[in-house]
Amino acid sequence: MINVAVLGYGVVGSGVVEIIKKNGMSISEKAGQKICVKKILDIRDFPDSPDRDLITKNPEDIFEDPSIEIIVETIGGAGVAYKFTKDALSKGKHVVTSNKELVATHGPELLKLAKENNVNYLFEASVGGGIPIIRPLNRCLAANEIYRITGILNGTTNYILSQMKREGKDFDEALKEAQAKGYAEADPTADIEGHDACRKIAILSSIAYNEFVDCNNIYTEGISKISLEDMKYAESMNSTVKLIALSEKVGDKIAARVSPAIVKNSNPLYNVENVFNAIIVKGDAIGDVMFYGRGAGKLPTASAVVADVIEIVKHWGTSGGYDWQVKNQDNIIDINDTETKFFVRLKVKDEYSAKEVVGKVFGDVEWVKMCGDGLKDELAFVTGKTSEKKHKRLFETIGEHDSVIQIINTIRVLGD
Amino acid sequence: MINVAVLGYGVVGSGVVEIIKKNGMSISEKAGQKICVKKILDIRDFPDSPDRDLITKNPEDIFEDPSIEIIVETIGGAGVAYKFTKDALSKGKHVVTSNKELVATHGPELLKLAKENNVNYLFEASVGGGIPIIRPLNRCLAANEIYRITGILNGTTNYILSQMKREGKDFDEALKEAQAKGYAEADPTADIEGHDACRKIAILSSIAYNEFVDCNNIYTEGISKISLEDMKYAESMNSTVKLIALSEKVGDKIAARVSPAIVKNSNPLYNVENVFNAIIVKGDAIGDVMFYGRGAGKLPTASAVVADVIEIVKHWGTSGGYDWQVKNQDNIIDINDTETKFFVRLKVKDEYSAKEVVGKVFGDVEWVKMCGDGLKDELAFVTGKTSEKKHKRLFETIGEHDSVIQIINTIRVLGD
Repeated sequence: MINVAVLGYGVVGSGVVEIIKKNGMSISEKAGQKICVKKILDIRDFPDSPDRDLITKNPEDIFEDPSIEIIVETIGGAGVAYKFTKDALSKGKHVVTSNKELVATHGPELLKLAKENNVNYLFEASVGGGIPIIRPLNRCLAANEIYRITGILNGTTNYILSQMKREGKDFDEALKEAQAKGYAEADPTADIEGHDACRKIAILSSIAYNEFVDCNNIYTEGISKISLEDMKYAESMNSTVKLIALSEKVGDKIAARVSPAIVKNSNPLYNVENVFNAIIVKGDAIGDVMFYGRGAGKLPTASAVVADVIEIVKHWGTSGGYDWQVKNQDNIIDINDTETKFFVRLKVKDEYSAKEVVGKVFGDVEWVKMCGDGLKDELAFVTGKTSEKKHKRLFETIGEHDSVIQIINTIRVLGD
Repeated sequence: MINVAVLGYGVVGSGVVEIIKKNGMSISEKAGQKICVKKILDIRDFPDSPDRDLITKNPEDIFEDPSIEIIVETIGGAGVAYKFTKDALSKGKHVVTSNKELVATHGPELLKLAKENNVNYLFEASVGGGIPIIRPLNRCLAANEIYRITGILNGTTNYILSQMKREGKDFDEALKEAQAKGYAEADPTADIEGHDACRKIAILSSIAYNEFVDCNNIYTEGISKISLEDMKYAESMNSTVKLIALSEKVGDKIAARVSPAIVKNSNPLYNVENVFNAIIVKGDAIGDVMFYGRGAGKLPTASAVVADVIEIVKHWGTSGGYDWQVKNQDNIIDINDTETKFFVRLKVKDEYSAKEVVGKVFGDVEWVKMCGDGLKDELAFVTGKTSEKKHKRLFETIGEHDSVIQIINTIRVLGD
């Protein structure tokens, strides 16, 4: 029998305990040994919980108990969770987590510590909730050189954008609805501004390219400036707007970003709606593979945590850990040096002369007309592919022109 | 260093050798040891192949060589491949294969033999080509009770149906094109008639439900009777026709079938086009997860084979094998006792009286009108959900009625 302790009896932590109880028989069968939750650490009281007898407020009950060999960390954040994870690994206990912030910020150190102590630090649940992605990326696609990952990695923003598209709600209204349904937190900043997706693409990239990708170096832009009009323009291009996390091998370096993007209906990500997540991985042998499912939620995320626990028990003794070498702190290409196409909306004084100016500044562009009546005094177009640095200059140039009142929005166009 | 031998230097076998050469460095890094192809068995001559020095016609060069520890079987079929696999496992060599026929027919015996000899028999490549599905199903979703699998598991038929839908080609024309492009074999029976998809859903079900599901017990119907008109009717229901392989836990038993089905556009399988495959797995914790990618082809399939080889090397000594107990030969529910809805097309003498008869025989039905002009003397409708046995009786009854000239087609409707 293997004893597990769960740190943090919140949504995911209580889900872990629930699944181990509910599917205990088949879990033990798959793991080859009985798996048992011996202790739960939480500072709160849960007098009505069926698990109340397992709950302790004293970490020593867990860290000093040699019979507890696997720690499930579902506290979240990089504060006390960081300390507990280091303590556990140092004491030779395996750690399984859903904590993307901790993995994205302290991954290399914790993986090294795990290796030194001959234990595992696994985090399947940190990306894509219950969608199997970390292990497939690391194991099943191991024969491939992976060179691109594109994903919808945040359910909150995808729900909001889906509501804008389907129901014609504006951003604020859709956000409020997401909060009412529990899909967005009271302070939705981490989701809305793309930080959550950024941590996840950093983790996936680190696994795929076998070197640490620091989320602090990834350009990140949220969805708060996406309007209903942008969505309608996208529709008129047989496209939609999604918050896309992307990373790509370019020579020895990595181009990565999180930003809203125009996604064509021929791209499988186009159809990923509401709180669902999806990740497309491109490898040299496999081509495109997509993983799709619920990217968050109590039981989906908890099931990924428990799968990691089973993995450790089944392969007891052989480290299935990762090795994130910090090969190069400078491995991310500056966003300004990456190339993309932009969808651009201008408020103009005079359409005719503004069109002429756009032609002069941007060269050949694809003009975009909104379905239906269209908007007065507006021009919209898609630029050619060139560097972001050059785009910035062109946006400045066009913005200064007399016939242009304002650049209403610029949104990246997702390439193939 | 670990020596591998490849049996069968065909499409997949030569792909395996190519990938191990091309991505050798990173493969060795991931496996923790260098992996090397020492011998290739084939009865043919390949004087121009870069691997000609490795090719032998004598199986003993491989089976009697104790330095060869892993055998890759890419011969296919259940003839000589069966014998070689048994020989290899008996001699304590690990076997990795893409051979779905062999796994589906002799899986339990070969897995038992592997276990007895403390080696692995792995077959990630047997389903979904390069799409990671077997390992995710077995490992990453291990914390779930899986109760449903729905998939598009055959690229040939999906290509044909996509061409019918998109290009308005009829079945014969689309099949010829598939053959010309190398997506269908000269004798396309195994694909067209659903046998290939049947073997694959049998393998997935055996993994998911942890008991052997015999493909011979699964009802299988191909796509050759699907017409352009059927496709147009489906479109008018915001649906399309796909060859769907399905299996589902119903109490202690399993309902399974392979057949064309009407798939709604809200189902993620609706958007899976051309040679792509996709598999939706439903688990009690995770909900729906979908895996999507190229279901066939040299390098995708070969990359799945190589991933299995890496897995064995990485976890040397700990068996990651499956254990397919033949719990019950009678574990599949008779198709007649399963429930479904049908889409039905009737050729009728007189619409008015035929409608009346349909109402009397089937009760409430959903009438379906084809977009555009529609077809003269035809009625089309979707029945309520009831057993296939009862449906058969109702089809007989309606067929005998004076106002009905002919039942043109009946196609199952995929439920949620």
